[in-house]
Amino acid sequence: MNIDGRPWRTIWLEEGGRSVGVIDQTLLPHRFVTRSLTSVEEAAEAIVTMVVRGAPLIGVTGAYGLMLALQTDPSDASLAAAFERLDATRPTAINLRWALERVRAKVLPLAPQQRAEAAKAEAAAIAEEDVAMCEAIGDHGLRLFQEIAARRPEERRGQPLNVLTHCNAGWLATVDWGTALAPIYKAHRSGLPIHVWVDETRPRNQGASLTAFELGREGVPHTVIVDNAGGHLMQHGQVDAVIVGTDRTTRTGDVCNKIGTYLKALAAHDNGVPFYVALPGSTIDWSIGDGVKEIPIEARSPLEVTRIAGKPAAGEPTSVQLVPDGSDGFNPAFDVTPARLVTALITERGVAPASEAGLQALYAAA
Amino acid sequence: MNIDGRPWRTIWLEEGGRSVGVIDQTLLPHRFVTRSLTSVEEAAEAIVTMVVRGAPLIGVTGAYGLMLALQTDPSDASLAAAFERLDATRPTAINLRWALERVRAKVLPLAPQQRAEAAKAEAAAIAEEDVAMCEAIGDHGLRLFQEIAARRPEERRGQPLNVLTHCNAGWLATVDWGTALAPIYKAHRSGLPIHVWVDETRPRNQGASLTAFELGREGVPHTVIVDNAGGHLMQHGQVDAVIVGTDRTTRTGDVCNKIGTYLKALAAHDNGVPFYVALPGSTIDWSIGDGVKEIPIEARSPLEVTRIAGKPAAGEPTSVQLVPDGSDGFNPAFDVTPARLVTALITERGVAPASEAGLQALYAAA
Repeated sequence: MNIDGRPWRTIWLEEGGRSVGVIDQTLLPHRFVTRSLTSVEEAAEAIVTMVVRGAPLIGVTGAYGLMLALQTDPSDASLAAAFERLDATRPTAINLRWALERVRAKVLPLAPQQRAEAAKAEAAAIAEEDVAMCEAIGDHGLRLFQEIAARRPEERRGQPLNVLTHCNAGWLATVDWGTALAPIYKAHRSGLPIHVWVDETRPRNQGASLTAFELGREGVPHTVIVDNAGGHLMQHGQVDAVIVGTDRTTRTGDVCNKIGTYLKALAAHDNGVPFYVALPGSTIDWSIGDGVKEIPIEARSPLEVTRIAGKPAAGEPTSVQLVPDGSDGFNPAFDVTPARLVTALITERGVAPASEAGLQALYAAA
Repeated sequence: MNIDGRPWRTIWLEEGGRSVGVIDQTLLPHRFVTRSLTSVEEAAEAIVTMVVRGAPLIGVTGAYGLMLALQTDPSDASLAAAFERLDATRPTAINLRWALERVRAKVLPLAPQQRAEAAKAEAAAIAEEDVAMCEAIGDHGLRLFQEIAARRPEERRGQPLNVLTHCNAGWLATVDWGTALAPIYKAHRSGLPIHVWVDETRPRNQGASLTAFELGREGVPHTVIVDNAGGHLMQHGQVDAVIVGTDRTTRTGDVCNKIGTYLKALAAHDNGVPFYVALPGSTIDWSIGDGVKEIPIEARSPLEVTRIAGKPAAGEPTSVQLVPDGSDGFNPAFDVTPARLVTALITERGVAPASEAGLQALYAAA
């Protein structure tokens, strides 16, 4: 997507092909800085320190990490060590493991001198496939937005379509386009007037920081709201649709996404506002039927609740304490939205009802 | 209530009876400082700068403000000027106007030299009545909590009752006890084990700051959560009841309270968790039947969304920017929770269903 008119991706092969560029996402939204990764160790560190974040981007960073290792030493031992180092950065990241295994399977049968080039090609292929997948989600979602816009009463035609989103499921979490934001970018670029309500998404504020940054730099009209405000806006007809991403989707269409998503789904349901979830098929966990009962929810550090980071009037961004000394916090990172509250799932293969039959119809033939 | 073992109120007549003490609530929770108000001008400034906040406390501050004016000059002109100055601090605060009118009606017929004493007595009476009203709410709410505790399955008996609250409807907003927190204090003091989930309540964070401060200093076990977390906790049986305050209650039982209350009510309803609203009868607006349609919702400064105040690692509390330069915010301050989502209203006269019949049964004879 664009940053002030210039197209960017979140990761790219740099001039000469022996280093990889990324955006340092830890400094957003207040500073835009890119980093050059020149070794497998730097790639691993970029994942650990969350310079890169988001499952697809982490996967591509891992794939390029193997390339960087093989450029220095293409031996079996080097490949094994690099795989282990990168895999250990995020032991629970399914997508990272998948990308690493895919590159390893491609290069292991080759002669050592062919491996680095093959890894580069495979990493690039993974990146391009992710872009294509996100763009397909964007195209399918755009059609839904166009239908909603056309169904509005006469007096609201031509006014911007108001879409609410929670957390960041934009291009910064993928290679390009994003998932939940892809239909928004498609709408904006196609000339469908659109305005986005951006939930700040406490405690990590990925909405107020990353989503607002993305939309602002692309030029998409948007307004940041606190997570408490969405229900009120829906009661008063100020939200035409909600669209969010998902970290994990059950085979029955339950959606595990950033904490607070469930509350927005309840409000959308109570007010007849369509609630869409955008996802690549890779987030579907076919082994799980009841998301609320079966998906374990990680509790992150209470410090994310009791403190917050921001930019002071002068000086570098810093963190401030929000609670009185002695008060503690609890920080469940995700919640599960039951399928009954989800109007439809938007996937790279098309739009499906949030149900086992709906997902089967799209993916059973896979 | 107690602060570290010593009982406090939010406002008190100081030694000598010619000044009034208040807690500077703008400095909470990071600093506890009291202020001495010695003139009507200082009383007015305390209201304007939010050194005191909460409708009942503002009313009592106004009443004592008239006393301070009459101590200096008991003439009709002085009374009129003081009334006007205090009333202008918060033109929409019904309770302030009511308290000022009550003191004026009492003192106006008197000889000037009797007025200051009469104003002092009336201000004190208003304060005591507020304390008694809050305590009555506390007693009625305590009985509900005791019933819920007794109804829990055998294996959960004796464990703390988990109560979730939003914003601050505690003693800092009143003279003592508070409204929504009064039953919690009553439970804690009566020996019913209780634990409070404190919604931080963006954008002004009165939960994370004021409610957490109150509960911590009284010694009530509590945990601060982001506003996004309550739904997840309710899905997993970690909330036995929700209790909140209200700024304005329709005759039909709709409740206008701090933004985000509606989302918690939806989650409580979806999970079979009782949702209680604590209120003095004075918040009932008998002229309004449909809260969502008829209650105008004030939009406050977007800066409350785009910035936040907190305590840095070193130095004085400060404000930091949360959004990228160029992104704006929208800040509706309240939302309306329809009566259908409210399990019961807890008033100083007892517990009522959230309906016109329920409120009539308690207040019709008034």
